[in-house]
Amino acid sequence: MRKFGIIGVGNVGRTVAYTLVTKGIADSLVLIDKDRKRARAEQVDLQDAQARLSTTTQVSIQDYEDLKDVEVLYISAGDVSISTNGGNRFDEFKLTSAVVKEIAPKIVASGFHGIIIDIMNPCDAVTSYLQKLTGFSKQRVFGTGTFLDTARMQRVVGEKLNINSRSVEGYVLGEHGNTQFVAWSSVRVQGKAIKELPEAKDFDFDALADAAKQGAWEVASGKGFTSDAIATCAVSLGQAVLSDARIVCPVSGYSSLYDTYVGIPAIVGKNGIESTVTLPLDTAEQAKFAHSAQMIHDSVAKLD
Amino acid sequence: MRKFGIIGVGNVGRTVAYTLVTKGIADSLVLIDKDRKRARAEQVDLQDAQARLSTTTQVSIQDYEDLKDVEVLYISAGDVSISTNGGNRFDEFKLTSAVVKEIAPKIVASGFHGIIIDIMNPCDAVTSYLQKLTGFSKQRVFGTGTFLDTARMQRVVGEKLNINSRSVEGYVLGEHGNTQFVAWSSVRVQGKAIKELPEAKDFDFDALADAAKQGAWEVASGKGFTSDAIATCAVSLGQAVLSDARIVCPVSGYSSLYDTYVGIPAIVGKNGIESTVTLPLDTAEQAKFAHSAQMIHDSVAKLD
Amino acid sequence: MRKFGIIGVGNVGRTVAYTLVTKGIADSLVLIDKDRKRARAEQVDLQDAQARLSTTTQVSIQDYEDLKDVEVLYISAGDVSISTNGGNRFDEFKLTSAVVKEIAPKIVASGFHGIIIDIMNPCDAVTSYLQKLTGFSKQRVFGTGTFLDTARMQRVVGEKLNINSRSVEGYVLGEHGNTQFVAWSSVRVQGKAIKELPEAKDFDFDALADAAKQGAWEVASGKGFTSDAIATCAVSLGQAVLSDARIVCPVSGYSSLYDTYVGIPAIVGKNGIESTVTLPLDTAEQAKFAHSAQMIHDSVAKLD
Amino acid sequence: MRKFGIIGVGNVGRTVAYTLVTKGIADSLVLIDKDRKRARAEQVDLQDAQARLSTTTQVSIQDYEDLKDVEVLYISAGDVSISTNGGNRFDEFKLTSAVVKEIAPKIVASGFHGIIIDIMNPCDAVTSYLQKLTGFSKQRVFGTGTFLDTARMQRVVGEKLNINSRSVEGYVLGEHGNTQFVAWSSVRVQGKAIKELPEAKDFDFDALADAAKQGAWEVASGKGFTSDAIATCAVSLGQAVLSDARIVCPVSGYSSLYDTYVGIPAIVGKNGIESTVTLPLDTAEQAKFAHSAQMIHDSVAKLD
Repeated sequence: MRKFGIIGVGNVGRTVAYTLVTKGIADSLVLIDKDRKRARAEQVDLQDAQARLSTTTQVSIQDYEDLKDVEVLYISAGDVSISTNGGNRFDEFKLTSAVVKEIAPKIVASGFHGIIIDIMNPCDAVTSYLQKLTGFSKQRVFGTGTFLDTARMQRVVGEKLNINSRSVEGYVLGEHGNTQFVAWSSVRVQGKAIKELPEAKDFDFDALADAAKQGAWEVASGKGFTSDAIATCAVSLGQAVLSDARIVCPVSGYSSLYDTYVGIPAIVGKNGIESTVTLPLDTAEQAKFAHSAQMIHDSVAKLD
Repeated sequence: MRKFGIIGVGNVGRTVAYTLVTKGIADSLVLIDKDRKRARAEQVDLQDAQARLSTTTQVSIQDYEDLKDVEVLYISAGDVSISTNGGNRFDEFKLTSAVVKEIAPKIVASGFHGIIIDIMNPCDAVTSYLQKLTGFSKQRVFGTGTFLDTARMQRVVGEKLNINSRSVEGYVLGEHGNTQFVAWSSVRVQGKAIKELPEAKDFDFDALADAAKQGAWEVASGKGFTSDAIATCAVSLGQAVLSDARIVCPVSGYSSLYDTYVGIPAIVGKNGIESTVTLPLDTAEQAKFAHSAQMIHDSVAKLD
Repeated sequence: MRKFGIIGVGNVGRTVAYTLVTKGIADSLVLIDKDRKRARAEQVDLQDAQARLSTTTQVSIQDYEDLKDVEVLYISAGDVSISTNGGNRFDEFKLTSAVVKEIAPKIVASGFHGIIIDIMNPCDAVTSYLQKLTGFSKQRVFGTGTFLDTARMQRVVGEKLNINSRSVEGYVLGEHGNTQFVAWSSVRVQGKAIKELPEAKDFDFDALADAAKQGAWEVASGKGFTSDAIATCAVSLGQAVLSDARIVCPVSGYSSLYDTYVGIPAIVGKNGIESTVTLPLDTAEQAKFAHSAQMIHDSVAKLD
Repeated sequence: MRKFGIIGVGNVGRTVAYTLVTKGIADSLVLIDKDRKRARAEQVDLQDAQARLSTTTQVSIQDYEDLKDVEVLYISAGDVSISTNGGNRFDEFKLTSAVVKEIAPKIVASGFHGIIIDIMNPCDAVTSYLQKLTGFSKQRVFGTGTFLDTARMQRVVGEKLNINSRSVEGYVLGEHGNTQFVAWSSVRVQGKAIKELPEAKDFDFDALADAAKQGAWEVASGKGFTSDAIATCAVSLGQAVLSDARIVCPVSGYSSLYDTYVGIPAIVGKNGIESTVTLPLDTAEQAKFAHSAQMIHDSVAKLD
């Protein structure tokens, strides 16, 4: 039996819940929100939907004790409107770090022994803080991080080359935020490094990276939040955990070198992050990674 | 190739779009919204998601001409906050009838020759008006109507009897609104009319019907709108059209007797409503149906 | 984590496995076959497929100990060619009862504590025998029984009335075999008993029931076996167990009245058969049921 | 509306059909087989299954005229038992080239104007012959080719490195048969060329390539045929065509250099093969490709 939990049933948490139910992925789903009425609304809406589906999901709400045997727990609290204004996800940190302070002891007290996938922002910093306050192993707690930004890069490159985004390989690394960077040395299409493509000699790679990063704000400002891609990423990671898939992908994982969570390639399986992967980055990319990781580390340190 | 269109990319339209893309149902999808930025935001978010899916959907926006070869067109404009306040979907009629006036000629001009599934509220009245202003056949235009309310009744009855809502048969008929009614004579579980069940002799059927109806407002007031169940219903009807499924279900279809759209059982297939179905209602139910249909008819008449 | 097992990886077991993997239903799957090479072939074929899917399933083979934490175990051994010749599923009983003798102690010894869904033939008799030899509770062991025959009846009636088979309600009961019968008193379409439909006054109901029953042999003789519908039924029941769906449907369940497994309506949930349901059959149908149940009972008694 | 056709409803064609129906991918499906009873059996089995699904597919049989508006047509005739014995898919060529002679004029006469995906063996040679006899453009006719062998290579490498096969990038090229080769220069994992991995310095790459190739025969000899992976590949390509996905993948496409179909990387979209892709192969790989392509070319030439 697959049992999921979601803390924070706003636009993202709700879309994750909808996906888990309507695709028949979850057998059981616990929804928790600071606003009981909102959690109840989502529960009823999901239950109403099930008369029109061929699968069933038991949806319960507001009970931390019910997290005891949850296998994958998403944390999707926050308020995107805070960061949408200024374009900096760190503007949400005050709010989300307070959320962590409130929920971490409750999660621990529940006896929860599964994997946490954090979607809150600023993703890397708040995942660091969440891991610290829960005391869970660094494997068991990770964030969606640049898994989403990588999808955006794949879209932008795919559009540029007129191929499917799934046929674009590569990584966006570092902060799920403004200091992120596309590791262009890792980006490959059609069996070649993108920089070796004849047509790429005229590409403005900085502009492409910027287009990928700005896509987030185009979505957030246009509809008030982002939901589709982040929920799809989060569900995909949850499925990888439950099926011990050992997929290789960028997530927000713990870097011992920088003592912080940051967007790095990892192998995701039943234990959460099974191991991290070292990419052969070029010198400029290594500097960008160091800069990004240090910034996250310092932000968390400042918090304490 | 399956091509869908959605006019109105708010909470419902967006959830329909998300479902069509993430379940791999649509090959092509046209999004149109009065707010271009919102349509664009949804397009980008759906495109970003596709790097994490195994299927592809071409998503285009804001082009009425692109409706020309759309097979199923959803209309999901509106503003639920208007009706949520007062609990009466007719409060939205002023807004949505204005929407119809604006979009109907554009849809016609596009050369669209598919099926329209209307989700706007007040569903029956606005579907009547939409059919009139497009001049399309009454088969080709129908509304989700009480297909959703029936799902809610199934949930409530399923909970009461501790069985799956899919195992509850029956119909909610009339207005997708306050004058709707559960046709209890049609509700069956475990091979028996519900009223013949021993345990049902103590049921307060009016309270059950009310619980189903109020579920909508519990959702809308709790999260600000309803989305999961209505999107699931809408997608299910669209799939029935594309695959010529000829499923029997309640929708908002045209009743010649009352010269209006109203929630009635129908056979849904490639032509939209293939035919309507006459249920053996009891006298009280017939009266409720007449009352509900007349009310809708009068509201539309008043509009002209 | 959802863990399934399949004993007997012939045409049916293989199709169940394929469905569980390609629809992303199973996280883990144990395949066991008397022919190790066949189990290994299926394992490799399913693993090869996964590079082209977006979900992962761990597939292991030939290890009874691995059944320990399996939640749903399908038994699909047998040799349809035996019964296809004569058109009587009881011709397989000698073979399948021997299979039961061999595997029951191994299943018990594994520490398996999940639910068994039996697909072998003659389904009711061999499920009776399997329950007896495992000593598991009668809830935890059940067979697909007339869940499949009911689907066939729904197809035949749907074709006759030109509506979707899913819109046909009703039950085929008794033996998953020659003494089965359509409980026409339970068959309803469009909110009416089928016998009350005006167009039904000319129907030859015996011919319809026969068409449903003969469909099985048309499939088996045409392609050498049946697989699609039975696998779809079996997977659907397994999903109902894992999600505690409490759907109401005909399966091969234990009738204390006749002290045998036989096709009866039941509520299927996390405990397997949560309870059985008594339909208001007419006198002739009751006699048919008694005859069918008695025949199965006697066949199993004879075996001992 | 998505309309598919399948000519040849043996183990592979049947599994493709089952997938298209049970995953709700096809709205309409035409099955054609030299054995009418087999096609009818599959039709009935798929129709029976649909009472247990939430989607509908119209399944028709044996009518070439019905191919007129089919969008994707699979050709899966053949007899794997011929080649399984000797381990050489060319042993089937006599049979399958005769099939092509018989069906090509019928397909043309039907007015079919969609895309053909050929699954017959020897895949490259018979696809060449099919393109020639239909006279359709080389874009519109292609074969599954080494898309399947690449999946097998991904499995073998994934197992070796203990990561998901989907996280292994690279290509198997040339014949879908004995002269195929893994283009190891294209195989990458975790952002690195496989040959640069520290742990790979002890790998026997020839043995790995052989394990991938022999997997096919392990499956075919173990269960008598292969079905799961090839059907999954074929469905995936058909979906790419219908949604104009422009995925980059190896298929059997036309090489003008060698005037033959052969396993090469291509972009697959609404026109079938949108374009082919040139990989930076090393000298040894180029020689293997030339050898493989020439062999296929000569075999087809010999046929005429």
